[in-house]
Amino acid sequence: MQVDLNSDMGEGFGPYRLCDDEAMMDVVTSANIACGFHAGDPDTMVRMVRLARERGVDVGAHPGLPDRQGFGRRELPFGPDELRQQMLYQLGALTAIARAEGVTVSHVSFHAAMGNMVNRDPALAAAMMQAIRTVDADLVVFGTADSVIERAAIEAGLKTLTLFLADRAYDAKGALVPRGQPGALVKDEASVRARVRRFLLDGTVTAIDGTVIPMRARSILVHSDTPGSLDLARTVRSEIEAAGGTVTPVSKLLR
Amino acid sequence: MQVDLNSDMGEGFGPYRLCDDEAMMDVVTSANIACGFHAGDPDTMVRMVRLARERGVDVGAHPGLPDRQGFGRRELPFGPDELRQQMLYQLGALTAIARAEGVTVSHVSFHAAMGNMVNRDPALAAAMMQAIRTVDADLVVFGTADSVIERAAIEAGLKTLTLFLADRAYDAKGALVPRGQPGALVKDEASVRARVRRFLLDGTVTAIDGTVIPMRARSILVHSDTPGSLDLARTVRSEIEAAGGTVTPVSKLLR
Amino acid sequence: MQVDLNSDMGEGFGPYRLCDDEAMMDVVTSANIACGFHAGDPDTMVRMVRLARERGVDVGAHPGLPDRQGFGRRELPFGPDELRQQMLYQLGALTAIARAEGVTVSHVSFHAAMGNMVNRDPALAAAMMQAIRTVDADLVVFGTADSVIERAAIEAGLKTLTLFLADRAYDAKGALVPRGQPGALVKDEASVRARVRRFLLDGTVTAIDGTVIPMRARSILVHSDTPGSLDLARTVRSEIEAAGGTVTPVSKLLR
Amino acid sequence: MQVDLNSDMGEGFGPYRLCDDEAMMDVVTSANIACGFHAGDPDTMVRMVRLARERGVDVGAHPGLPDRQGFGRRELPFGPDELRQQMLYQLGALTAIARAEGVTVSHVSFHAAMGNMVNRDPALAAAMMQAIRTVDADLVVFGTADSVIERAAIEAGLKTLTLFLADRAYDAKGALVPRGQPGALVKDEASVRARVRRFLLDGTVTAIDGTVIPMRARSILVHSDTPGSLDLARTVRSEIEAAGGTVTPVSKLLR
Repeated sequence: MQVDLNSDMGEGFGPYRLCDDEAMMDVVTSANIACGFHAGDPDTMVRMVRLARERGVDVGAHPGLPDRQGFGRRELPFGPDELRQQMLYQLGALTAIARAEGVTVSHVSFHAAMGNMVNRDPALAAAMMQAIRTVDADLVVFGTADSVIERAAIEAGLKTLTLFLADRAYDAKGALVPRGQPGALVKDEASVRARVRRFLLDGTVTAIDGTVIPMRARSILVHSDTPGSLDLARTVRSEIEAAGGTVTPVSKLLR
Repeated sequence: MQVDLNSDMGEGFGPYRLCDDEAMMDVVTSANIACGFHAGDPDTMVRMVRLARERGVDVGAHPGLPDRQGFGRRELPFGPDELRQQMLYQLGALTAIARAEGVTVSHVSFHAAMGNMVNRDPALAAAMMQAIRTVDADLVVFGTADSVIERAAIEAGLKTLTLFLADRAYDAKGALVPRGQPGALVKDEASVRARVRRFLLDGTVTAIDGTVIPMRARSILVHSDTPGSLDLARTVRSEIEAAGGTVTPVSKLLR
Repeated sequence: MQVDLNSDMGEGFGPYRLCDDEAMMDVVTSANIACGFHAGDPDTMVRMVRLARERGVDVGAHPGLPDRQGFGRRELPFGPDELRQQMLYQLGALTAIARAEGVTVSHVSFHAAMGNMVNRDPALAAAMMQAIRTVDADLVVFGTADSVIERAAIEAGLKTLTLFLADRAYDAKGALVPRGQPGALVKDEASVRARVRRFLLDGTVTAIDGTVIPMRARSILVHSDTPGSLDLARTVRSEIEAAGGTVTPVSKLLR
Repeated sequence: MQVDLNSDMGEGFGPYRLCDDEAMMDVVTSANIACGFHAGDPDTMVRMVRLARERGVDVGAHPGLPDRQGFGRRELPFGPDELRQQMLYQLGALTAIARAEGVTVSHVSFHAAMGNMVNRDPALAAAMMQAIRTVDADLVVFGTADSVIERAAIEAGLKTLTLFLADRAYDAKGALVPRGQPGALVKDEASVRARVRRFLLDGTVTAIDGTVIPMRARSILVHSDTPGSLDLARTVRSEIEAAGGTVTPVSKLLR
């Protein structure tokens, strides 16, 4: 019972920090590193890659929209071509930085609004996956189960890793309850623990309406940009280990 | 008698253009493409790569300082590590974009202040070249003869291409007369033609004090960010061809 | 028969220019100066204010969305409060710069997408006008006839100056034909001359369907961000003077 | 015994916060509000002005260099004219925002590198003060005792408020011990309390070498961009009140 535990990392900027990246890097097995558009910068990226290398954590690209002020959460009027070039630019930047540090980028995980825009547009998703594949056919694409992103990645011949969001409610069809709706966020530790245990032992999750639905996933995503994210990540990890599971980086999981 | 003819390209931004890149791409054999820090952006980079591919022009990275307002010409207080990460970031961004378009990046040519800072600091130059080499050991580094950059590239086992600046005066020791000093810029067409001819036929240039000095170079750089740059490039190319030379992209020249 | 002739100015950035501001400043009577969000910067603003002062040209604020790459032409997901604060920020910046140069800002003219967003939202327009009034109750608001902006300005007790766009087609109801539709732009000099003459002598314009409609306006706006804008402005001015009119800055026109 | 207590405020950006501005606004009497160059943005500025208004706190401009990544702490190669225009731009932006909220800007306090650059250049300081005076002759300039800024402000006929930095060591001549030197920062609460008490009761401070020197000041500056800044501010305020002093905004202090 191996499961990846991943988080978005290096999302500070200049004097600002969103999360204790050093401490978080001790907890996760895969790091989705911000690439300088919605957050991060070249120095932070190098620092993240070195931390990940020291601790055996996989390095992934976490591309977002060029919007620091909105933290990449606002959808902006970019066309499919612009989004593709923005993603390529960021993926390439991290790839070169990682290579110079002796590290291979293992995966791609879209950030916020960029991810939402890709997940609504199968043609864009296909173009994105084709571009990712041309840069490196071994890259693993992270996405939620049956999402447009996941399907496009499979279609393009890329490996995928399906995510379970332990701190977000699902509806009876397996879709995430949108942020802003009541109950969308699962905050208390006991609930998160129970959800992780059920996911690991039964492969299910209890939806917001009480239905028990299957949860096909091999990785748990913990958001880092909220207060208490580090504690949450530790809770998830300890629950994985308590349930007899082993946290495992994506590159080892899919080998 | 083969010689490369290169220029900085894609240095516009948003609604702005510095040069008619489409027309210039018909004249040069190697394009140094701005990578989104001092100028350019992901869309422009893709456009430049496609233009270059169509016309058989080599694609190189033209990394600069993150300073659009100053166009990368102001030296900024970045340390060696920051400069290295900035260069890597830009080189990687272009590499991924080029790869997605089926193009291999052939070379690296530093822009303005970033180049000046590297050319004054052998330790920084060595770190830069080591990083370039790790990203792609086949990259060719552009530099003027006997510059710190050229020496560091050779030391790191990288190929180099030595530049002749047809529109800039040299002193008797072969160094460029700094911009701002009288006579630093060679503007009239007849002089540029004469200098190109002498360089091609004799391998020499007449320095600002009248001395004739050797000019070891295999490529002519034409600046694109000045009025008349396109005409200048055409003048240089026609003179090369009039002297019986052949303009040749760096990748073919060093093969 | 006095008429103001205005244009957007100082819309360059760093090494880039959109228009020959020096030459244009000899032609117009009111300058709408970019305030550093969609274009311009503090130095350019000072330069524009000084040019305007020397030549007796009125100085106005030309606030836009914070989007240099899109030149303020893309609508971005800002709420009414954000737009109000962005406008205030820019208006204040120009006001202080002008005051330090001994100049009073006479007017406000919204740029592109910011103007479109305000023109669609009467509540936002009201909030904008209230804010403008609190900063300086003597500011004149520029807008097209019967636009949401013009009505909100009048409602708030602000003076307004109605614009005639000599190089843009109108429909039979007096609305601008949107850019992108056939015939939206009037490019040939003879047509522009004829339109200016008819506007001055009859107070009418011929709509795109041939209808002659009234054109209530006291100022002609010439876009500066298109090739040939300087020639167009000179054409308009010479036609005004040929028809016996006098170009007059907004502050003298409304006195 | 009235003393102003001031701090830099609104220095967050997008998703980032440096300090709990709401809580800090309950402690200080004057707020130096970041103006969108080194930190802050139009929305944050409005939020700060409203908080200050509600709590009777004076509003001042805190202009800095346009360098979010370096938080305005790096000296950048701007000339005197550029620095003057940048300061004017920011001061004007805050002035309009404050006016729209019914608040008058009371003072100007330079941030970090901009302040250091002005403090080294009497001609620049004179130009800055002349510009400030033209914008609003009632503005109070904050500075340390006998600094170039303070002298230039007095020379220009502006009111000044002299700052005491309770958490920074002074040398025997009354100059601040530069950050980075041992003992430059005074961190423990007891020492800060003792320094505040001595300053209030005796008008002196113990320099780093043990000398007791006069400390002419009417305001205490507490940095907000360090961990524990809120507690430090509360400590200073409680010590002022324990010593029988009254915290008083600059506008009341100099009336």
